[in-house]
Amino acid sequence: MRAAVLRNGVVETRTIADPTPGPGQLLVRSLACGICASDLHFMDHPEAGADDDSGMSTYDTDVDIVMGHEYVAEVVDHGPRTERRIPVGTRVSSLPILFTATGVKIIGQNPETPGGFGEYFLLSEPMARVVRSELPAELVSVADAISVGWSAATRAQVTPREVPMVIGCGAIGLSTIGTLKRLGVGPVVAVDFNAARRETARAMGADVLVDPAEVSPYAAWRDVATGSPDGARDLVAAAGLPGSVVFECVGLPGVLDGVIMGAERGTRVFSMGGPPAGEHLHTLTAKRKGINIQFGGGPSPEHWDQAFEAVCDGSYDVTPMVGHSVGLDEVPAALDDARDADGPARIIVVPTR
Amino acid sequence: MRAAVLRNGVVETRTIADPTPGPGQLLVRSLACGICASDLHFMDHPEAGADDDSGMSTYDTDVDIVMGHEYVAEVVDHGPRTERRIPVGTRVSSLPILFTATGVKIIGQNPETPGGFGEYFLLSEPMARVVRSELPAELVSVADAISVGWSAATRAQVTPREVPMVIGCGAIGLSTIGTLKRLGVGPVVAVDFNAARRETARAMGADVLVDPAEVSPYAAWRDVATGSPDGARDLVAAAGLPGSVVFECVGLPGVLDGVIMGAERGTRVFSMGGPPAGEHLHTLTAKRKGINIQFGGGPSPEHWDQAFEAVCDGSYDVTPMVGHSVGLDEVPAALDDARDADGPARIIVVPTR
Repeated sequence: MRAAVLRNGVVETRTIADPTPGPGQLLVRSLACGICASDLHFMDHPEAGADDDSGMSTYDTDVDIVMGHEYVAEVVDHGPRTERRIPVGTRVSSLPILFTATGVKIIGQNPETPGGFGEYFLLSEPMARVVRSELPAELVSVADAISVGWSAATRAQVTPREVPMVIGCGAIGLSTIGTLKRLGVGPVVAVDFNAARRETARAMGADVLVDPAEVSPYAAWRDVATGSPDGARDLVAAAGLPGSVVFECVGLPGVLDGVIMGAERGTRVFSMGGPPAGEHLHTLTAKRKGINIQFGGGPSPEHWDQAFEAVCDGSYDVTPMVGHSVGLDEVPAALDDARDADGPARIIVVPTR
Repeated sequence: MRAAVLRNGVVETRTIADPTPGPGQLLVRSLACGICASDLHFMDHPEAGADDDSGMSTYDTDVDIVMGHEYVAEVVDHGPRTERRIPVGTRVSSLPILFTATGVKIIGQNPETPGGFGEYFLLSEPMARVVRSELPAELVSVADAISVGWSAATRAQVTPREVPMVIGCGAIGLSTIGTLKRLGVGPVVAVDFNAARRETARAMGADVLVDPAEVSPYAAWRDVATGSPDGARDLVAAAGLPGSVVFECVGLPGVLDGVIMGAERGTRVFSMGGPPAGEHLHTLTAKRKGINIQFGGGPSPEHWDQAFEAVCDGSYDVTPMVGHSVGLDEVPAALDDARDADGPARIIVVPTR
C-alpha cells in the first residue's frame, strides 16, 4: 500500500506491505485522518517514550511507522475470529487502541499498529464504531480530537459559580471550549497569542478572547469574574470571586508554572498539554494557593463515544476547526504546515485522493 | 517580657517589650506552644517569602520576631473595641491568624504578630476559641498540627474502594493517619525512613508500616491493595486495583516527583509539603497516568474547629505525638533538636516554666 512512512525522524510517502488483520481485527481503508500535534510530538521526541513503561507506544527509529490516529475508515475485510457484525463497506472509527498478541497498543504509534496516514490499517472489532452520519469523513475524523476536550470539560463539572479559562486554542483547547459551551457553563475565556486561533475560539463559542501579548490572562479573567473591567469589584470582593477553572492546553514549558504563579487561590487546573521533559513548578506557591492540578489522562471510552455521537449527529459543529485536505504525497509538507500556529486546527489527510 | 527571639537567622532568649493589644485584640499569656517544622522553614528561608504576595508573612532579618503558632494561652487583658466575651484567666487557642491595621497576618511570622515562644502575645477576639477541656495545655496545643492532616484527610473523601498511603510520618503525616483512621477508612499504609516515626505512626493507627530503605512504597502499596504479598493478584487484576490516594507529607525535593513516577495510574495526591524552591516534576508521566495533585492550602476554619474540639474532648488522642517540654531558655536548643527525625513529632515550649 501507499503510506506516509516515519523512519528516523523523517516522513516520506512510499509503498510498503499491506497490513494483515490478526484475530479479532478488521482491515480498513483510511478515508480521512487528521494531523494532530501529538503526531508531531511523537516524531520529534523518540526519547519521550523512555519514561513510559506501558508498552502502548514504541518509536523504533529503524523501523517503518505509519502515524495517524484521528481517522474515519471503511471496512475492507474481517480477520480470523471476528464476529463480522460490521459489513464490508461500512464507515467506522474508534478510539485509537488496537488489541494485539503483544498487548494493547496505540494505533499510529507502533511499527505493528499503522495509522490513518496510509491506505490501509487495522482496527479491533470490539472498539470499532459505525459512523451513523451523512457528514463527510473529513468532519467526522475530528471527533477523536473533540473527545479529549469533551472528557476534560465534562470531568471538570464546572459550576455556575465558576468561570472557566482555556489557555491555548489548538484542537484540544477548541474542543474544550465547544464542550463547555455545550454544557451551558460560562462565560468562557479563551487565550491564545494567535489571532486566527482566537477567531476560531470565538466560532467554537468562546465569550471573551484574550491575547496574552496585550493583557495578562489572569487580569482578564478577574475582569470577567468581577463582571466588568471597571466596576463591581467591591461587590465581588464582599461576595467572593467566582471559582477559577483553568484548562492548560498548550504543553510548552513554563505555561503550567505560569498558571500556578498567576491564577487565583483555589484554582482548579486541567493540564492537558505537558512538555516531554516535564518542567519546574513552584510547588510552594501552589501549596499556599491550594491549587488542584488534574493531569491529562485522555478520554474515557464513554466520553469518546459521547463525543463521537455528538459529531456524527451534527449537534457538535466542528467545521471551524477543519482546514484543507491533502493526499498521501502531501503528508510530509502538511506535517510541516501543521507546526504553524497560523494554520487551521486540523489539516485532514485523505489517502483515497 | 521574656521571649525566644529570632533575628538574623538566630534565636536567642532575652527580654523585649510586651505586646500591646490593638482594637479587637486580646493580650494572652502563652501556656504551651509546639515547635513545628514550619518554624524551622521560616527561620531558615527568609527568601521563601519573596514569592508570596499575600503580605501575611514577613521575615525582616533586622527586626525581632517571636515564632510559635501552635499554642494554648490564657486571656490576660482585652484591647479596645473588644466584646470581652471571654473572661480573663480563660484558656484559649486559635487559628494562627491576627487581624491588624495593616491586614491579616500569620501569628509568629511577622515582627508585629509575636507567637507563643514568648510570655505574651496577641489574638484576634473573633478567632479565639475557649479550651473546653481538662487536658494539659501541652496536649491541646497539638490541635493546630492535627487540623492540617484533619483537613486533608477529610477533603480527600477516601472511599472504601481506595487504599490511602501516607508518605512521611512527621506531625502532618501522623495527623493525617489519625484522621483517616477516625474516618474509618483504610488499611492505611505509612512510610518513613525513621523507625521511631514508624512506631508513632502505628500508635496513631497506621495498619502497614513501610521503611522505604527496605522496600518500594509503591510495591508495598500494591501488596496491601491486592490483599497479600503472595496471592490474589490475578483476582485483583480482573476486578481492578483499588484506587490509590497518596498523602505527601515530607516536603523535600524529589518526593512529589517520586510519587508521580512510582504511583499507580489515576492516583490522587495530596501534597502537604513542598520545598521552598519548588521542584521539577515529570508532568508528561503525570499526564499519561492521569494523576491529580491537590496542593496544600492549609485547614479551613471549619476543619480547624473540628480538629480542635476533637482534641479538647479527648476523642482524638495526640499523646503519641507529644515529646518533652522546655522552658524559654531552652528554645534555641529545642529548635535544633526538632530537626532530628529521631525525636518526637512535637517538642512543647512552656514559657511559664
